[in-house]
Amino acid sequence: MLNIVILAAGLGKRMQSDLPKVLHRIAGRPMLAHVLDAARQLQPARIVVVTGHGAEQVQAAFQGEAGVVFALQQPQQGTGHAVQQALPHLLEGNGDADATLVLYGDVPLVQAETLSGLLQARAGGLALLTETVDDPTGYGRIVRNAAGNVERIVEHKDATDAQRAIREVNTGILAAPTARLRDWLGRISNDNAQGEYYLTDVVALAVADGVPVHAAQPAAAWETLGVNSRLQQAQLERAWQQEQARRQLEAGVTLADPARFDLRGELVCGRDVFIDVGCVFEGRVELADGVRIGPHCVIRNAVIGAGTQVEAFTHIEEARVGADARLGPYARLRPGADLSQAVHVGNFVEIKKSTLGAGTKANHLAYIGDATIGARVNVGAGTITCNYDGVNKHQTIIEDDAFIGSDTQLVAPVTVGQGATLAAGTTLTRDAPAGRLTLSRVPQVTVESWRRPERKK
Amino acid sequence: MLNIVILAAGLGKRMQSDLPKVLHRIAGRPMLAHVLDAARQLQPARIVVVTGHGAEQVQAAFQGEAGVVFALQQPQQGTGHAVQQALPHLLEGNGDADATLVLYGDVPLVQAETLSGLLQARAGGLALLTETVDDPTGYGRIVRNAAGNVERIVEHKDATDAQRAIREVNTGILAAPTARLRDWLGRISNDNAQGEYYLTDVVALAVADGVPVHAAQPAAAWETLGVNSRLQQAQLERAWQQEQARRQLEAGVTLADPARFDLRGELVCGRDVFIDVGCVFEGRVELADGVRIGPHCVIRNAVIGAGTQVEAFTHIEEARVGADARLGPYARLRPGADLSQAVHVGNFVEIKKSTLGAGTKANHLAYIGDATIGARVNVGAGTITCNYDGVNKHQTIIEDDAFIGSDTQLVAPVTVGQGATLAAGTTLTRDAPAGRLTLSRVPQVTVESWRRPERKK
Amino acid sequence: MLNIVILAAGLGKRMQSDLPKVLHRIAGRPMLAHVLDAARQLQPARIVVVTGHGAEQVQAAFQGEAGVVFALQQPQQGTGHAVQQALPHLLEGNGDADATLVLYGDVPLVQAETLSGLLQARAGGLALLTETVDDPTGYGRIVRNAAGNVERIVEHKDATDAQRAIREVNTGILAAPTARLRDWLGRISNDNAQGEYYLTDVVALAVADGVPVHAAQPAAAWETLGVNSRLQQAQLERAWQQEQARRQLEAGVTLADPARFDLRGELVCGRDVFIDVGCVFEGRVELADGVRIGPHCVIRNAVIGAGTQVEAFTHIEEARVGADARLGPYARLRPGADLSQAVHVGNFVEIKKSTLGAGTKANHLAYIGDATIGARVNVGAGTITCNYDGVNKHQTIIEDDAFIGSDTQLVAPVTVGQGATLAAGTTLTRDAPAGRLTLSRVPQVTVESWRRPERKK
Repeated sequence: MLNIVILAAGLGKRMQSDLPKVLHRIAGRPMLAHVLDAARQLQPARIVVVTGHGAEQVQAAFQGEAGVVFALQQPQQGTGHAVQQALPHLLEGNGDADATLVLYGDVPLVQAETLSGLLQARAGGLALLTETVDDPTGYGRIVRNAAGNVERIVEHKDATDAQRAIREVNTGILAAPTARLRDWLGRISNDNAQGEYYLTDVVALAVADGVPVHAAQPAAAWETLGVNSRLQQAQLERAWQQEQARRQLEAGVTLADPARFDLRGELVCGRDVFIDVGCVFEGRVELADGVRIGPHCVIRNAVIGAGTQVEAFTHIEEARVGADARLGPYARLRPGADLSQAVHVGNFVEIKKSTLGAGTKANHLAYIGDATIGARVNVGAGTITCNYDGVNKHQTIIEDDAFIGSDTQLVAPVTVGQGATLAAGTTLTRDAPAGRLTLSRVPQVTVESWRRPERKK
Repeated sequence: MLNIVILAAGLGKRMQSDLPKVLHRIAGRPMLAHVLDAARQLQPARIVVVTGHGAEQVQAAFQGEAGVVFALQQPQQGTGHAVQQALPHLLEGNGDADATLVLYGDVPLVQAETLSGLLQARAGGLALLTETVDDPTGYGRIVRNAAGNVERIVEHKDATDAQRAIREVNTGILAAPTARLRDWLGRISNDNAQGEYYLTDVVALAVADGVPVHAAQPAAAWETLGVNSRLQQAQLERAWQQEQARRQLEAGVTLADPARFDLRGELVCGRDVFIDVGCVFEGRVELADGVRIGPHCVIRNAVIGAGTQVEAFTHIEEARVGADARLGPYARLRPGADLSQAVHVGNFVEIKKSTLGAGTKANHLAYIGDATIGARVNVGAGTITCNYDGVNKHQTIIEDDAFIGSDTQLVAPVTVGQGATLAAGTTLTRDAPAGRLTLSRVPQVTVESWRRPERKK
Repeated sequence: MLNIVILAAGLGKRMQSDLPKVLHRIAGRPMLAHVLDAARQLQPARIVVVTGHGAEQVQAAFQGEAGVVFALQQPQQGTGHAVQQALPHLLEGNGDADATLVLYGDVPLVQAETLSGLLQARAGGLALLTETVDDPTGYGRIVRNAAGNVERIVEHKDATDAQRAIREVNTGILAAPTARLRDWLGRISNDNAQGEYYLTDVVALAVADGVPVHAAQPAAAWETLGVNSRLQQAQLERAWQQEQARRQLEAGVTLADPARFDLRGELVCGRDVFIDVGCVFEGRVELADGVRIGPHCVIRNAVIGAGTQVEAFTHIEEARVGADARLGPYARLRPGADLSQAVHVGNFVEIKKSTLGAGTKANHLAYIGDATIGARVNVGAGTITCNYDGVNKHQTIIEDDAFIGSDTQLVAPVTVGQGATLAAGTTLTRDAPAGRLTLSRVPQVTVESWRRPERKK
């Protein structure tokens, strides 16, 4: 029976923030959410999040997460003390498979594969996640015995010169038999300079008890990086974005510049997708085969069909786009935009909560909101659906093959019939019949006597 | 008589693409196009492209290229076998000057200067392009004799420890006397693990025949980088963009950030040009003296006159802009936009296939298509040329010094005379006479009894 | 009494520019301006700028700067000769505290803290700013005596092998007792290959005169980087931007990517500010607590209130924004835009020289210029204030709670009364009374006989 304890009580003073540290974000999600993701992939019986600073905020942010319980550490007296608070919540079963894995809410990117490796390495005993670094200064060194088992962790300040030369260091992440862990945590003391209970002290107790101590290593160095400052947050953000870019490239996506690709969520791409520089993806985005995204686009929670071309500066949010569409530059699809095949949405056009049928075009300067537009409709430049009367929103319906002249206002609720034509400048307040020209127009007049205004002095 | 053989038969499985590998792009052009560019600069008598996977697609993409013939390698049995397919097409003349240079369609950025150096190094014999690398693991080592001539190439797996310490490695690019090459290729065997014919086996034959084997090196390491994956493609793209940025800087252009400059084509700049972060240039772009390009602009096939300022988020394609113009932010010039001196095109304005005379301004939210506009015209906010009736496009003519009021629709074909004024909100369906005010306007009415709509329950 | 001499006579041939070298910019300001900033922080009695190439341009650019005098070096005969031109302007007081500090207009980013350290290190004698570099090739080496004092500077070409191994090099920046400096400069000769007078020759004279020569080091390596080419300018720009990003991070700002953050001026942030990728800040910008700036925004001289969210592609210049506002994407605030609390300005909306009251919304495609708009006003899509009659600008006033229908033109000067409603498509030429519906509208007509145009052959 696997328990996972996540330490999330830290203040994060160096963040200089009103937010508890574990709620700060990497790739758009709170750090603690990343740790919970990795934890859940291991299918533990229980996850205990130990909160402290900002406990209410943290708990509120993760309210109702299945299988997660919260334990309060108040005051904060070290990592060992933190895990002690979780002990009442740990589940135990049949001895050997029982284990408790300790993670950290501010070490957000440890991957489930690495943790599985750690749990396997445990082999019934204690397992530490360790890492070999170029400069181990300041870290606890992993001292191994002749058999290669971990013998102890020596803190930097207590290390001999020979020990300081050791480059294998402790990351703090460990997995232990749950019953043993209870026992050891009951025996560690706070008899040290800081007066704190250190989780790492269980290693010495394990060795003393004859419990073998193994070690495993993460696949990538960034997995064990912690965040104590905005600088570290930014560095980890970049490491993670680089990793995500690498994954997209490996999956066959062309990125014009992997260093200028931001993914805050999930991006699922078909074959031969091209993504230009400076694009930001948020939420869940699907790009089908052959989609091309131009430079500096922002796309959030969207599905885009095969062969569609998205030009520069396009902004898409909560929208669906069919195949072979052309969007932008400067197209904006807002929530509820639903575009069929081969739709064209051009520059300075905003679409909100509207359906556009196959082959329909709105190429220039338009606002389409709360509308149902059929196929092959031409929406002229400057067209505006007047969907809002100040209190309520109303629907506009435009049937197939209609031609909406430029600078037309469709005062909703209103319907334009199939194949109807609206003349330029029309204010449409009643339905326009199918197949006919409808307009509201004043005769053009020239004023002979008129003189241009003169410059005021 | 110089022949150039370009091997372009590879599948590029790791690209995970429907496109043959050599059609994948660096800086906006197929890799094979880059190799052909370098090849042509050497003025060869003949270029033979050896195709295989996707042969039809490759041939179609380069149909009608002068001096290029295609040879099909089917099935693919190694690089030696590939060059064999080209042999029937090689031209031979008077002995000594006869040479055949072998290039690779997936090693796209080798420069003509490097290849010239290789051909000179040949000195009538065989010449290899070699490179000294930090980590030669996996590469064929260049073993030289006491005289410094190349003696053999030893593959990594066959190398002794002493040979593995050699850091000079083979790039695969070589030049040989054509008649000798024919002979050697007839003598190489496929008696190896892969059952393939290796081009590098000609080196041993050259040495055996007493033909001197020389080596030359590329000016830059990126010249010999090959592309087998999207990751390598992205790395080479960045190396090339960095090189292009360096060239612009050396030519006296200020780049706000050389790492955020993308050039997919040719950029010719005058003196004291400034280019801000995040700009993308495609096709052929000319920027005259003192031009300033703001952040995040996209410019494709355009000529921009001296002193013109382009503000952020401007998108220009197939357009000409005169001197001292001001564009953007958010200006869009589409194909056929032709702006004279001191024209201002402001935010959310689209110009297509239109001429704007000196000093004319269209500063806000407008669509100008298929129009001929004179000098000193003021195009008001929201102006739209209604150039499209659903099937045909029509012309709008606006003569010098006209004033087009805001939110005016010009229903083409229509002409606004010199110095004419159109009142705000006018729908112009007939010509507006010069020097006069023309309008289409309804008296303004206030409805006393009206009540605002109430919120629906 | 402290004098500061800034050498600013260089041509900067490799810049390939019409601008004198010291007028080229780092972070949007001339290099000389940066040096003057650092100089002023030391509160010197006098600053002498030695000009030469482009002297008039340089002097014009810094005309009227308090405490700055200009000395002309014509022709340019070396750094020693340059400082000689400044001698007549140097102020002297009571012996010991008298000092002259020599800086360089093309070494723009030396920090005042470093210079203070140099002046302290002087201890009444001569002090050099030196630096320890990895590759000292080409630099003058700092030779120290057994006591650790500087004994001489040996130029690279004159150095022995042992001296060439020295990695401490001269940066050229030095501080000397003013009277001594006068004396030494009178004694240096131009008996060298270039026939120039070198400032560094004063070091040998100081040693000969028994004046102790000390050295101090800069806090960061980029402080002493000089700019002789666009490449060096770009490198220093990036080093400086990286430093500025670091400072923001340390102050508690979240930057999505520190490598894609550009600050050309001053940025003052409250707590928990988030800045997305690709943003450019110019002039003085204040972002209050909790402000979020989306990707690819450009913000120049602006104050933005707490909790305000700025979406992608927003362009702000000389504007004030209240708390809890929502701007963009694609919002443009031009000079004089003054937005109260909770104002919404949406896509393709331009605001110029206008006040918007609390809770007012202009969400789509609009131009608001020279307007005073009250609270809770709804500005419909396509609304245009017709503020310009071709020669003069006029004011629009919209009072609280008005509802401006879509595609309305407000022909200024005009007032919309409190709670008034304008119907869609209205051309408003006279004041609209409070609380009433005002409109200008034509009956809608359908033409039964009309046929769509046919495609021209």
